[in-house]
Formats: sequence, C-alpha cells, structure tokens
Amino acid sequence: MSSRFGNNVTFSVFGQSHSEAIGVVIDGLPAGEAIDMQQVQAFMDRRAPGNRPSDTPRREADVPRVLSGLVHHVTCGAPLCAVIQNTDTHPEDYEKLRDIPRPGHADYPLRVKFQGFQDIRGGGHASGRLTAPLCFAGAVCAQILARKGIELVARIVEMGDVKAAAFTGDSVGGVIECEARGLPAGLGEPMFGGVENRLAAAIFGIPAVRGIEFGAGFAAARMKGSEHNDAYRLEGEQVRTATNHHGGVLGGVTTGMPLVFRIAIKPTPSIARTQTTVDFARNRETELAVGGRHDVCIVPRVVPVAEAVTACVLLDLLLDAKGVF
Amino acid sequence: MSSRFGNNVTFSVFGQSHSEAIGVVIDGLPAGEAIDMQQVQAFMDRRAPGNRPSDTPRREADVPRVLSGLVHHVTCGAPLCAVIQNTDTHPEDYEKLRDIPRPGHADYPLRVKFQGFQDIRGGGHASGRLTAPLCFAGAVCAQILARKGIELVARIVEMGDVKAAAFTGDSVGGVIECEARGLPAGLGEPMFGGVENRLAAAIFGIPAVRGIEFGAGFAAARMKGSEHNDAYRLEGEQVRTATNHHGGVLGGVTTGMPLVFRIAIKPTPSIARTQTTVDFARNRETELAVGGRHDVCIVPRVVPVAEAVTACVLLDLLLDAKGVF
Amino acid sequence: MSSRFGNNVTFSVFGQSHSEAIGVVIDGLPAGEAIDMQQVQAFMDRRAPGNRPSDTPRREADVPRVLSGLVHHVTCGAPLCAVIQNTDTHPEDYEKLRDIPRPGHADYPLRVKFQGFQDIRGGGHASGRLTAPLCFAGAVCAQILARKGIELVARIVEMGDVKAAAFTGDSVGGVIECEARGLPAGLGEPMFGGVENRLAAAIFGIPAVRGIEFGAGFAAARMKGSEHNDAYRLEGEQVRTATNHHGGVLGGVTTGMPLVFRIAIKPTPSIARTQTTVDFARNRETELAVGGRHDVCIVPRVVPVAEAVTACVLLDLLLDAKGVF
Amino acid sequence: MSSRFGNNVTFSVFGQSHSEAIGVVIDGLPAGEAIDMQQVQAFMDRRAPGNRPSDTPRREADVPRVLSGLVHHVTCGAPLCAVIQNTDTHPEDYEKLRDIPRPGHADYPLRVKFQGFQDIRGGGHASGRLTAPLCFAGAVCAQILARKGIELVARIVEMGDVKAAAFTGDSVGGVIECEARGLPAGLGEPMFGGVENRLAAAIFGIPAVRGIEFGAGFAAARMKGSEHNDAYRLEGEQVRTATNHHGGVLGGVTTGMPLVFRIAIKPTPSIARTQTTVDFARNRETELAVGGRHDVCIVPRVVPVAEAVTACVLLDLLLDAKGVF
Repeated sequence: MSSRFGNNVTFSVFGQSHSEAIGVVIDGLPAGEAIDMQQVQAFMDRRAPGNRPSDTPRREADVPRVLSGLVHHVTCGAPLCAVIQNTDTHPEDYEKLRDIPRPGHADYPLRVKFQGFQDIRGGGHASGRLTAPLCFAGAVCAQILARKGIELVARIVEMGDVKAAAFTGDSVGGVIECEARGLPAGLGEPMFGGVENRLAAAIFGIPAVRGIEFGAGFAAARMKGSEHNDAYRLEGEQVRTATNHHGGVLGGVTTGMPLVFRIAIKPTPSIARTQTTVDFARNRETELAVGGRHDVCIVPRVVPVAEAVTACVLLDLLLDAKGVF
Repeated sequence: MSSRFGNNVTFSVFGQSHSEAIGVVIDGLPAGEAIDMQQVQAFMDRRAPGNRPSDTPRREADVPRVLSGLVHHVTCGAPLCAVIQNTDTHPEDYEKLRDIPRPGHADYPLRVKFQGFQDIRGGGHASGRLTAPLCFAGAVCAQILARKGIELVARIVEMGDVKAAAFTGDSVGGVIECEARGLPAGLGEPMFGGVENRLAAAIFGIPAVRGIEFGAGFAAARMKGSEHNDAYRLEGEQVRTATNHHGGVLGGVTTGMPLVFRIAIKPTPSIARTQTTVDFARNRETELAVGGRHDVCIVPRVVPVAEAVTACVLLDLLLDAKGVF
Repeated sequence: MSSRFGNNVTFSVFGQSHSEAIGVVIDGLPAGEAIDMQQVQAFMDRRAPGNRPSDTPRREADVPRVLSGLVHHVTCGAPLCAVIQNTDTHPEDYEKLRDIPRPGHADYPLRVKFQGFQDIRGGGHASGRLTAPLCFAGAVCAQILARKGIELVARIVEMGDVKAAAFTGDSVGGVIECEARGLPAGLGEPMFGGVENRLAAAIFGIPAVRGIEFGAGFAAARMKGSEHNDAYRLEGEQVRTATNHHGGVLGGVTTGMPLVFRIAIKPTPSIARTQTTVDFARNRETELAVGGRHDVCIVPRVVPVAEAVTACVLLDLLLDAKGVF
Repeated sequence: MSSRFGNNVTFSVFGQSHSEAIGVVIDGLPAGEAIDMQQVQAFMDRRAPGNRPSDTPRREADVPRVLSGLVHHVTCGAPLCAVIQNTDTHPEDYEKLRDIPRPGHADYPLRVKFQGFQDIRGGGHASGRLTAPLCFAGAVCAQILARKGIELVARIVEMGDVKAAAFTGDSVGGVIECEARGLPAGLGEPMFGGVENRLAAAIFGIPAVRGIEFGAGFAAARMKGSEHNDAYRLEGEQVRTATNHHGGVLGGVTTGMPLVFRIAIKPTPSIARTQTTVDFARNRETELAVGGRHDVCIVPRVVPVAEAVTACVLLDLLLDAKGVF
C-alpha cells in the first residue's frame, strides 16, 4: 500500500526519478465526467520546474499521456492511467552516491529497507518528481469538484529568502496554506476516517512535508476555549460560524465552512555546501557537496501539488456512501 | 472504515459516551505474547479522569474486560476484544442539547451527517471517552514493543494556565511531544504508507488534535538546508545523525534515530461561559452555557492516549512484511 | 484483516468457541435504521443448535447483547457491537487434543501458524460457533435490505443421509442454494470488486464451505454458448432475461435478475469413528475418536448463516458510492 | 477497489480492450528479485491468441514494457508498472452494439452502472484482454515463488467439443484445475483472510469464471466424514495427509499438502448464432448475431491466467507478516 491512497477512488502512483516513465492509476472515478486536457496541462505546468529562479535546471515537458479510462475525453468508469515520460535524465550524477547517503534525503533509510536494491538515481521513487502524476490526478479531480461547486486554492504564507540562500549554496523552506470552499457539511467519517486523518495521510506523501495543522492549528494550543470556539449563527437557512478557528472540520466531519489547513515544507535537502556523511564502501565518515540539479526552494512548486492532493482526497470524501444511502 | 486503523494489526473502536459499554477489537496481534493485565490497568489509570484538578468530575472505573483473544493471558492469534462498561452516565445532562449544537464540538456536523440520528449523549461516539479503549490497545502493544526494545514516552511541552481558566469558566489546550526509542531503521513504506502518514492518520483520531509535526516540524520551514540537514556519523557499526531535526524519519522511513513528533491539542470546547449558537427547533440563534461534567484541560489525559496510539501504529509498522521476506 | 469483511460497512468478528464471549462489530451501518431485536433473535434461533436430530447437544441461549451503535433500537451511525456469552463450555473435552490434531479440522495448520499458542478449546476462533455473530450481523442487514425491497432466502438442495450417518458414527454434508430478489441492476465493481468476488471472499469465511458457484456454475462448463446465454426481453419498462443461467450477475455486476449461487458444505469433520492422526508429544502416529458434542450434519444450521453473510455483503454492495454520485 | 487485489503486494489492472494500452501496477514486490523478461514473455505467449483453432483471430504481440520498478532487471522496491499496447483494434465492430447488449456479456449491467458512459468497444474494461497484464504480473510472481520452492501448474480437466461448436457457430466452456506445490504450512489468515477467500476473490476477476471449489469441492458434499477426512501421517519429520480431499487448506490455512482447486469456465458468450436481445434505441426486442473476432472456447487461454492469478495471490499470502514476526 506504499504508493496508493484513497478509499472510494484510489490513486496508485508509480515511477522513479530516472525510470522510463512515471504515472498514476486512478480507479473509481465517477463515469461521465468530461476531462479538459488543456486545463490538466495548465495545472501541471504550474508544478513544472523552470519558471522561477528557485527551481531546478532540470527540464521536463511533463506531458501526460492517458492510456485508459477515457473515451472521447470522458471518464468511462474504468481505471484511468496516465504516464509521463522521463526524458531529461542524468543518471551519471548519482552513481557516486551509491554508498554515500545525502543528509536530509531518504537515501540511508531506503538503503536499509531495500537492502541496497533501491533505485538511487535522483532519489528514485522518493523523488519530488513523483509529484507530477499527483498533479495530473489532482487536476482531474479538481475539474469534477468544480462541477459540484467546490473550489480549491493553495498559497504560500511563509518562505525563506531564496536569493540569499542561492548565493550561499544553501536552501530554504516555507509554509503553504490550502483552502477549499463549497464543501457541504457532513463529509468525513468519525475517528480515523475523518477529513484530517485522510488529508494528513495523503499530504505526508508529498516529499518534504514536516507538519500539518487544521484551522488555528498549533496556535489553538495557546488559545482559551472562549477564544477558540467558533460561535454558530444563521445566515438565512444556512448555519455558519462567526469565525473559522476550526478550519471547516469538527470531529473529523466538515461543517460547511471553508476547509483550511497549513503544511510545513522543509528546506531542500540537496545543497551545494559541504556536509558530513558516511561512506559505506569505506566504512568511514566523509564530506559531501551534492551536485546535480536542484531547487533552492521547492515551496512554490509544492503549492499546486498540495492543491492536487487535496482535490484527490476531497473527491474521495465526496464519494463516501453513507450520506447518500 | 470510520473507527478503525492499522494494516497488519487493526484496531476497531466502538461505543459511545453513554452506551452500555465501549471497547476495541484488535485483530492481527502476533500469537504467543503474554499480556500483563496489571500493567495494562496501570496504563489506563493514567488516562482515567479524577487525578488532576483540571479533570472532569465524571468517575469511571475503566476496568477492561477481555472477552476473547487471550488464553491464560497469552495472545492466541484470534482477535482480542476488550470492553469497558459505562457506569457513571448522566444522559439527562444532554437532552436539552438535541437541537442546540455546542460550539467547538462535532454536534452540528454529525447532526447533518447522520440526519439527526447520532447519539447526542455526551458527544456519543465522538466523545473523548473513546480514548479509553485506545489506551487499552496501546498498553497491549507497548508491552510487545518493549520486548523488541522499543520504548515510548509522551510529555507535555506546552500548556495553558489551568487554574486561571477554571476560575473564569474557561478552558485551555497545549502541545504534547511523543518520542519512541529503539526503532530499527527501515520501517515504513514509501509515499503514502510512511511513518508520518500512518501516525498522522491515527493520531487525528484523538479528539481535539489540531496539528502534528515531525522532528523540527513547522520550525523546519524557517531553517536553512545547512541547518536542518542532520549530518551522518558512525558510532562503531551504527549509523547515527549528529542532530535529530528529521525526527527519526526520512522519506517516510525510520532512520534508527529517536522518532519525535508533537501534536497540538485545542482547548476543551465545553466551557461554562456563555456562547452563541443556534436552536434548530426554533430556527434562531441562542445563548448556551454548557453544563455537564468536563475537563478544564484535557492535555494531561491525552498524554497516555498519544503514547497508546503511537504504540499501536508502531506495532503495525513492525509487522510490515517486506523487510523480513 | 483475518476476521473482517466488507468495504463500506465492515464486519469484524471476534471470539473463540470457549472464550468468555463472541461477537461482532459492524462499522458503517447507515444511521436511522430501526432494528427489531425480536426479529434478530428469531433469525439467530434458526442457527442455534438443538432443534434438529442432526445437531450438537451443546446448548447456548445465543442472546445477543448490543453494547453500542443503537439509540432506542435505531442505528446512530456509530459502530454497533453485539456480544454473545459462551456459557455451556466443556473445555476439558479438548485438553487431550493439544498435541493430536483432528483430521479435517484446522488444528494442525493453526498449530503451525500460531506456534502452538492457538486456542485449542472447541476449535478456538475457527469454530462454527463464530457463525452466531455472523447471524446477528446478517439479521440486522436483512432488515435494512427488506426496506429496500430486497429479500433473501437460502435452502438445502442436497444433503446426505443423516440418520444413517448418525447410526454409524459418521457425518454428512450437502449443498445450499442462496437467492436474493429485488436487487437493482448495476451493483458491483468490475474485475476484483464484483459481486462474485466479494460474496465468495465472505462466504468462504463460513467453516466447511468447499466451493461456490453462481448461476449455472460448474454445469455452465458443460453447456454451449447458445444454451447458456440468457436472452434479453422487455417486460414493460423492465429488462429481464428469459432464463437465469447467469444467476443475476454478469461481469461482476448485477442485472436485476435474482442473484443465485450455491455452496458446497463438507461433512462435519468431528466423527465418533476412529481415525488416524499424529501425536506431536510422542512424535508418532495414533488413533483418535473425537469425543465432545458435535453435529452429524451442519448443513441445516449453515442455511441461515449463508443468508446472513449474503445479507451483509449485499448491504455493503448497496453502499458503494459510485452509482449514486 | 474495483480493479485491484492483494494486501501486501497489490495488483492494479488498467485498460480497456480498445484503449491505447492496458497494464498493471504491482506495488509491494520484495526488493532484490531478478526478473527474467524472456521467461515473462514466454509465460505471456501461452495466453496470447492465435495458437489454437479455438482462438480469436485478433492478433496482438503482447510485449510488455516495464516503465518502473526495475533497475537492471531487478526489483527495487518501487511499484512496477508494465504496459502493453493495443494495436490490432477494430472499434468499428462495436459501434452498432451501443444500444444492443450482447447476451452473456456484461454490456447491459455496465450500461446501467455507468449510465451509458462505459467503453463499449470490445467489452471495454470487462474484456478478456485484461488478462494479459494479469499474466505479466503472475509471471513475475511465479519467478519469485519458484525461488522459494513453490511451483504452480494449471490444466484443463474438462472441455466441450470445440470442433463441433465452431462448425455450428456456437461455443463451449470447461473446467481448469490449479495445483501449487511447495507451500509451507501455516499460510493464510483465519475466517475472511484465508487462502480460499483470497484466491476466490481474485479468481472471480477472470472473466467467465462461474465457480470455484477446493479439494474435493462440491463432491465433498456427497461424501461421509470418514471418507472425506484426510488421515495425518508422519513422513520422517514431515506431517502429511494420506489423501488430499482438503486440497491443501483447512480453516483457511495451508497444511503443506498441495493446494488444489478447480474453476468452472462458461462457454464464450460471443457466438455467431442468432440470439434475442433488446434494442434500447428503439425500445424493443431484436435479434443479434455477434460479429467481431472471438474465441470458440477460451478455456485453453484461461489456463495460464489461472496460474498467474494464483501466483499473485500466493506471493501475497507469503508476504503476510505474522508468521515471521
């Protein structure tokens, strides 16, 4: 179950940074939904590297090819598989890293887990490149959600100083806020099937995410009940809250208020500066300056990814059966 | 899937605050594990109310009764079911809340979700009382983990002023840090089956949790890569990191360093102070002061619950098959 | 996942033949469904031993006690847990079987699987006694299905000569046919989520089931396409088939015709006649005549169990989301 | 979950008969397993049409292309995705079937399920063509199983008269027996996670399977306990049974004896002979003779498919964690 999420609609991601292709199988999409591929491409282009000074110089067209699941651009109820070719690969950048794990990357634990058989090229399956198929999936789901009146947006609310970091061969992180409007009240299952549980389980699949908080989040821990509780009020027939410290979800279930959560993105672990690590071949410590092509800051590129994963989870939540029995 | 978590060993929680009993079914425990019921009781007593000035006056003995799964106190491979009677119930406290949702509680979204059929007494299935069976489950798992050399501890790292809050009829929250030592490197599946994903999905099942962060967490977003990356070093045969900003998990997989994460607990939503809400029976706004018996601050009682859920997830992770094929 | 089935509504069975109690947790029932407990009891009484000459002399009242999930006999959306006490236990009957596996029972493979820690009393968790909570669950689901116009019936279509078998200390088996009427067309997911897949996966959880066939089943293998294909016809607005060799399901999806399948029940493995087995304590072969209290033929008692499991699976299928999005 | 099976290792199948490609994602394969692609191709060639007089004239090279999951032909722990192009498609054969469901096919229930949006070309996702990626997956798993000493074989044990059927424009079915040798005792979970449950759930994903029986199967229903029970005996250190009516599995768990089961395959529903069906466009009954290219009997082609699915399920069973904790 490593590379899959979702209950009613499932998203199975495959591929490695330098494998022939990467992609996703989406199983359980409702039939009859028209998918505008230009919109999908536009969504994916937001993630693609190369548009910002903070981005990696690696260039990939990231044009998804749909192998199945659509008939004349309309979902047919069969699993939708989309693949994206890897073209601009420089595997030789990585061979020297076979026995030298990069600090801050998953190289070492994956080496242990897979007994040295993991794909070391570009981080393999743990690469941020795997967020490209996530964006494809999210772009598809967002179109379906939009028809139900649900709109998503993510934005950077905090980010380090990219220019200074680039100048010193360093990297920075940041915080992204996601918001979804138009969700009906009553989505989400109690306890472990709640909105937070399912969103968090999926969001931590985005590389570099180190935390997630809903509504007031960690700040809530410093508030009093009388401050944090959101008073209910009536707006015509609608039940609303005067404030939204709860972030649109109480007890795992949506209230109809905007869903709001934030995620913490760590600084890119690949940096040009020298770091201490170990050399397994020589069984000793060594110094490493990571070459290859990397982002100084991935936060801007994570914005559409966070939106995408959120869209996937929200569609999954909408497809829960019990509310509609 | 609402009230269940775990892949290899699953934990199915049942009960409502004022139902006859609450409990848990644990399916998939390894056979042959002796369970010391006194230790289990001692663990559960840490969660039981009444030991601190911040606690609810509700008194429950919280003595679990094991119906199945043990033979002479040893796991036999069959599902273990434990039940805890609800005895000190005052359902009459809640009848007036049928049409008046309490701010900060799940009353309103559950009313929508279950079309008014949800159990309103004491929060029903969404009550913090459901953490008692979680503590039972965690106490069982912690004993098995201890035999594998894995120790868990949770502690309060931040908490509001309980005395002042009690005096003003208000409530406070706090932050809890969990730490697990002795985990082998290589636990956790890539992407969506990682340690963070599975811990977060379970931890958000604890009522009042609003955020989770691993290692440096949100603070990582403000660090530079050169600060945040943990240098590797050799301690004899062991690979360690000089610092532990990564909190023991990289790319979803354990590194062998202590697993560290923090969770944000919101202030108890039940407060004596008057709040604004709606009265569905009269279709108008109204004022509410929540009666019944409540905790001024649940943070101390969540400490063993957080340990318990962590123990459950870590045992589940240990039982992943691939590492041992 | 050993003792659980269902996707939208899950059924977690617990208990052993001679544990304090057995039971089931049903998670995901729609809220607002009234459950008539007298009807449930009447359903369960059909399974209870003692009503037929072929039955075991063991007597159990089999009165389920609902611990959670109902409020005034109406489902509230929280998991429903029901327990049944084990009272008429004779564990001493089994002690001598600790090292001597009974032929035809799961004693030997479970001994290997659980390294000798399995509950040997009365077959432990593998006992037919575990079908009592299945009947409870099925009785609940059948009431909900009936309100949707879906009726179930199972019947014996083949059975050995019980009297002769009892006289010679032997046992017999038989074949049961299940039929469900009133199912809408379009239930079931393609490939591995189809009606047959999900029914078969659950039905093989009933002890002693050795085969399952849908519609014409194995006889279909001997028919020609022109004989086996069911011609479509119109009955007013309704699409029907002239015959029902397909048993109401094509490609995993219901057609609206009656769902028909048959299951093969092996002869009760516990027989008074002497059999050859091994004695692990002495590491040699030995002779065994199984004492205790057993059914000469369990087929009549499996009839309500088959109905029950079918009801559970059909409710689960009805709750699939996609058809109603 | 429609097109996926497996717990520890999962198999997600995608594609339609006339989509650009079909394929499978295998997630959870152990790392470090060398895969011989020539052996895989040889396995797939056994399923490919065109080698027998009973086969469809459709010609597909069925050369799988591995997009991910292998590094130098060795599994790397990341999901393995293989795709097979669809080349010899004649979609025009099917346009006239849009409103006229073929008897014995899933056309009608899928039309209802997917509100007319299903892919009608060649049966879409319900086509037997989807067994090609299953064969790929099975071929991979069989290589891993072989290294563990587990060998699989399937064979036809009953088949109709192909020549006569072809002559009369009709079709025939048959029965296939599968056998696996070398399985250790103790595989499989009790109740709903047993070998039969998991095999049946997967096997019914093969189009045209109408029944499955283990060991003596339906014949067991006609045996006495003294005949059907398999006596245990010792062969050196090994526990064996004198006969194998139980088919290698008792109570859902393997005994170490050969696993034996049989599946019933219905006659190919596509036949040249005229059949009665309905025309939804005209809302009346009509006559239909199915054109296109079809197999008179698919039983020989199902043989490797049954082996393949069995290999997948057995590898999944071997990866269950509890036995190795």
